[in-house]
Amino acid sequence: MPATKAYAAHTATTPLEPWTLDRRTPKPHDVAIEILYCGVCHSDLHFARNEWGMTVFPVVPGHEIVGRVTAVGDHVKKFKVGDLAGIGCLVDSCRECDNCKEGLEQYCSGGAVFSYNGYERDGSGITYGGYSKAIVANEDFVLHISDKLDLAATAPLLCAGITTYSPLRHWKVGKGMKVGILGLGGLGHMGVKFAVSMGAEVTMLSHSPSKEADAKRLGAHKFILTSNEEQAKSVTGYFDFILDTVSAPHDYNFYLGMLRTNGVMVCVGVPPEPAALHPISLIFGRKSLGGSLIGGIPETQEMLDYCAEHNIVSDIEMIRMDQINEAYERLLKSDVKYRFVIDMASL
Amino acid sequence: MPATKAYAAHTATTPLEPWTLDRRTPKPHDVAIEILYCGVCHSDLHFARNEWGMTVFPVVPGHEIVGRVTAVGDHVKKFKVGDLAGIGCLVDSCRECDNCKEGLEQYCSGGAVFSYNGYERDGSGITYGGYSKAIVANEDFVLHISDKLDLAATAPLLCAGITTYSPLRHWKVGKGMKVGILGLGGLGHMGVKFAVSMGAEVTMLSHSPSKEADAKRLGAHKFILTSNEEQAKSVTGYFDFILDTVSAPHDYNFYLGMLRTNGVMVCVGVPPEPAALHPISLIFGRKSLGGSLIGGIPETQEMLDYCAEHNIVSDIEMIRMDQINEAYERLLKSDVKYRFVIDMASL
Repeated sequence: MPATKAYAAHTATTPLEPWTLDRRTPKPHDVAIEILYCGVCHSDLHFARNEWGMTVFPVVPGHEIVGRVTAVGDHVKKFKVGDLAGIGCLVDSCRECDNCKEGLEQYCSGGAVFSYNGYERDGSGITYGGYSKAIVANEDFVLHISDKLDLAATAPLLCAGITTYSPLRHWKVGKGMKVGILGLGGLGHMGVKFAVSMGAEVTMLSHSPSKEADAKRLGAHKFILTSNEEQAKSVTGYFDFILDTVSAPHDYNFYLGMLRTNGVMVCVGVPPEPAALHPISLIFGRKSLGGSLIGGIPETQEMLDYCAEHNIVSDIEMIRMDQINEAYERLLKSDVKYRFVIDMASL
Repeated sequence: MPATKAYAAHTATTPLEPWTLDRRTPKPHDVAIEILYCGVCHSDLHFARNEWGMTVFPVVPGHEIVGRVTAVGDHVKKFKVGDLAGIGCLVDSCRECDNCKEGLEQYCSGGAVFSYNGYERDGSGITYGGYSKAIVANEDFVLHISDKLDLAATAPLLCAGITTYSPLRHWKVGKGMKVGILGLGGLGHMGVKFAVSMGAEVTMLSHSPSKEADAKRLGAHKFILTSNEEQAKSVTGYFDFILDTVSAPHDYNFYLGMLRTNGVMVCVGVPPEPAALHPISLIFGRKSLGGSLIGGIPETQEMLDYCAEHNIVSDIEMIRMDQINEAYERLLKSDVKYRFVIDMASL
């Protein structure tokens, strides 16, 4: 599949622009997908601008990929031409380590291969992501997508969805639990939908009063304006679980104070600087601060099936491919409800 | 019990010296104890020198108390005169909150009463600790002590023992688990003994080469010199659980890197400054950083019974009461193996 149209950043300081790349010819276990929609994750912007210092240019971002299978290798069993299919953050892993064997490919000790800016395990080069017309990947890392859901709104499930679903499942969020979702953005709005669907009492924790109406619309039972001292104090020692989706600097100790005894707060957002953590915030109340990275392939499929069953998709704003640079600027201002999705027909 | 001999600090900058205090006459549910031995915890020093800014002077430290019952109130059922008895960090709590009902009195929402520098719930004043000849407490906060064990070496179980036993139990340390104990002091040496007795593979993590022989003698299966880059690297992603007993500043991220996927590190030491925590240290590998504070009364009794069954006591150095100020200086240099215990007959 030579000459596949794409959008790439060529340096950290120049806009993304049209580019052409070669996708490999499908190998026996590969699936070729025509990309129909691709979500825009904040980490796309981090990579395009080399904010984490590890970008190999040119970079083609995008790891919330949905589309239709156009070709399959001879040995492919899971997919046939015409199937809907998705690809998230991972396209390969060692498959041999304990983590891979447990379906936690995202923690692969041998080195998971991320969908863009990743190194192919066979040494064939760098991976390029979903801001393009097509992609080829091993069937083991391709997900089935239900035709019951709006396809464009399904794309963000591949990163924002699994990133929030996985920790809620791992820490057994369900009925009778009081759950706080910290931050209402691409991740947070999925966190609210999932936690509500799992039966928890869900509180949106936000410092923006403007988020209250939306939080309630998304299903949150309560809203706490964290900048209001009285409101914040009212949830001291209140939550069993807090999902922290915030990537801006914030005081972990403040939110740990909202956990009850044995409570757990889990970070899925990555602030730019290390946080000042007082161990006392954990010691009094036997609390834990955890972290979670996307999810493994089996759990990503489970999440997609769960979404089809519970009619859960992302709230999206569709953009054309040539609006991506403008979309990045709006992302920086949190000016999106709640995920940009690129209509790849526009490329 | 008026005119009970004790040792007190009268200011943050003067040595502890002889003092006399009045203990209350036992109420119907009280037990009066002649104190025979009292362990010296590092927090005694913090309080005596007001290093946590909350000391009410004069302060009588000491919360690793063992002795013999000399009188009981009319309604006391658990103890009779002549019984061995112990008191740890707690002498009262609200008994009504969820934590108290679950036997987690140390996290009492109504306000646990600590054995010294605590406020009695009836408003009768400040509590005074174990650096004295006698103490009176409600029977619900008095523990049974086995006569099978060396009594002096049992005293430190009331704080150093339960502080390490409780998190090892809560996080289900046992056979097949790889456990790291960070720091070999009063807490760490108990952590090694307990984790070994529970069947885990135990590694002492220390930056002092001089600790290796002792760690092995205490039962540790391995020793990692954390200042040796090669040794430290050899345990990357290795441990299921790390018990962090260190109260000096240290890099949490460094030790979190030694946890395998789903690993947990639990702090029981309190460094003076907040730690710089990179959420990435938790996110990659779905790791958790927890905290734990001593233990509740039922678990403290369970721990004491466990120690009697498994013949576990603290390694101690006995001192006279008038050596306490010198002992504090030696504590600051970690010059004790591994707990000072005051022979109260010397007072």
